[in-house]
Formats: sequence, C-alpha cells, structure tokens
Amino acid sequence: MNTKACMEIIHSRKSVRAFTGENITQELLDEIVRAGMAAPSAVNMQPWEFVIVRDRAMLDRLGDGLPYAKMLYKASAAVIVCMDPAGAHDKMLEYAVIDASCAAQNILLATEALGLGACWTAAYPRPDRMVYVRRCLSIPEHILPLAVIPIGVPDGADQPKEKYKPEKIHRERW
Amino acid sequence: MNTKACMEIIHSRKSVRAFTGENITQELLDEIVRAGMAAPSAVNMQPWEFVIVRDRAMLDRLGDGLPYAKMLYKASAAVIVCMDPAGAHDKMLEYAVIDASCAAQNILLATEALGLGACWTAAYPRPDRMVYVRRCLSIPEHILPLAVIPIGVPDGADQPKEKYKPEKIHRERW
Repeated sequence: MNTKACMEIIHSRKSVRAFTGENITQELLDEIVRAGMAAPSAVNMQPWEFVIVRDRAMLDRLGDGLPYAKMLYKASAAVIVCMDPAGAHDKMLEYAVIDASCAAQNILLATEALGLGACWTAAYPRPDRMVYVRRCLSIPEHILPLAVIPIGVPDGADQPKEKYKPEKIHRERW
Repeated sequence: MNTKACMEIIHSRKSVRAFTGENITQELLDEIVRAGMAAPSAVNMQPWEFVIVRDRAMLDRLGDGLPYAKMLYKASAAVIVCMDPAGAHDKMLEYAVIDASCAAQNILLATEALGLGACWTAAYPRPDRMVYVRRCLSIPEHILPLAVIPIGVPDGADQPKEKYKPEKIHRERW
C-alpha cells in the first residue's frame, strides 16, 4: 500500500505556481522541513539549513527581487533551502549542492504529499539572486541559498508533466 | 492516506549496504528509473541519463574500481545516474548537478517504496571515479556520471538515522 501511494506522489508532484492564498500552519511547514532533513548526504554531513518565511511583507519583498519567483506574491509561505559548504564532506561545495538538492526534493515531495503545492525557484548558481536572498533574510556570508521554494494551497491549475523518455535508459552499458 | 504513506517512505529511506543477493526484475528497475524522470529540472530541460546494470560481471567490475561501492558485489543491480551539462538550462553544469540529484533522490525513494534497498555512492565530483565509471560503461565524454546506486533486496541490517535538528530551522529570517 505504501508502495503505490508513494509512487503516486512522486509522479503527481508538479511545479505549482498558482495558489489560492489560504493560510498554512506552522506545524505543516515544520513537517515539510523535517522531511527535507531525512535526505541522504555525503558521509552524513547534513550540510543544509532552512529558513521558513510566513511573513507577508517578506514574501513580497523576496518576490520583488527574484524574477522567476513572482508566485511568492500569492504563496502562503516559503522555505529557503541553504547550503553550508564548510560543513560538507571534504568541505566541497559540490557535495553541499548535491545534499541540499536531495533535501529540497524531499521538501517538494512532502509538500505534494500533504496536499499543498510548491515550486523550486533557483537562487544558486545565480550570484545576484543569492546576494538578494542573503540580504533579505540576513543569511551569513558562509551560507549559500540554493533554492527559494514558495508553498501554498494549489488552485488546481498546475498539472504534472509526462516526462518518461525510454531513450534515456541505457541497458548494461551506454 | 497517500500523505501518511509517502511521509513514512521519506523517513524510512536509509542507505542500504547489506543485500540478500536475491534477483530483481527488469520491470521493477524500470519503474525505479521512471520515478527518477519524474523529478523537476530547471526550465524542464531534464539533463539526465540512466544506465541500468544487471550483469554480474559488470557489477563486480564497478565494485573493483570504486572504493566506497563494495556493496556492488552483493547488489542485484545498479542504476548509474548521469548528467548531460550541454543539455541543462543555460548549458550550466550546476543545473545538471541539481537536476540529476533530484532524479537520484526520487530513485532512492522509489527503491524504498518498492521494498528494496539502495545507497548513493558518488562518482561526481571525483575525477578518478568518473573516469573509471565512464570506461566501464562506455559513457561518452560529454556525459558525467553523478552517482552509482547499487540496488538489492535489503537483509534488514540497515536502519534509518534520526537526522531532525530543529536548530537548522530559522524562522522568518536567519
């Protein structure tokens, strides 16, 4: 039963950009971020940090400065997934990016599982966007924001894409 | 119902390194890789490719050259998640790494959901490991292997870690 349910969530997850504007509780947001922390990381270093934003003025301010995150104006919250390269395996940025990406993907799936909607909008690797997010949220210099993830109640307009391409599967060797 | 089941899978996923050696069907492996392709990607570029290995000799050969992937000797299969930087948004390696990491995380979760076990072992960013995997599998020069994921029937020894750290959550701002 868990099998089918989880596979359905993986395949029904979509980028949600249209929200109703309804409120989301702190408890649900905490549960979403908790799912992020269940991700794997190289040598279990967990080089990630999270900022949860619910304040209307801050959501709007983030939207003002991020060209592809205008859905923040209608979002009920945002989770900013951050990386701590100095805390990653061998202090390598590459591992921080991989590990925090896995955490962000868990966050997207948990959001879908809870009946909510989310959309990955990139901060990293765009220096201007990273600087803007850092300034808005007082993120320290050694921490890099990876993604700004607006979260809200979906209005139903966004649907999953069919992305299965069998030609991308190679068998036994390329 | 889907909510609870999916959250349970997210939290019960663990790195499985001890396998029984039982066979896994091609159909299950295809379903696992199909879940990988349901991941998000920047501007929907899907800059990923997958190699599914079931051949015993090739699994052993991969294990011979990869210091942290010795569980390949007991694995029933492996999925090698690869990146195509030229096919990523703005042809940027960073986006390819992020997108393929999300695909790999979906693969880990689907494996858990199907009652199987898997473990992310890194190829990228280690040049020697990427070269070894490329040579074994005849992967073209423009494609980078991100992760070698051994998959098998878990023998039950590996258990999920509790990784929730509330101090990693920042509220409204850092």
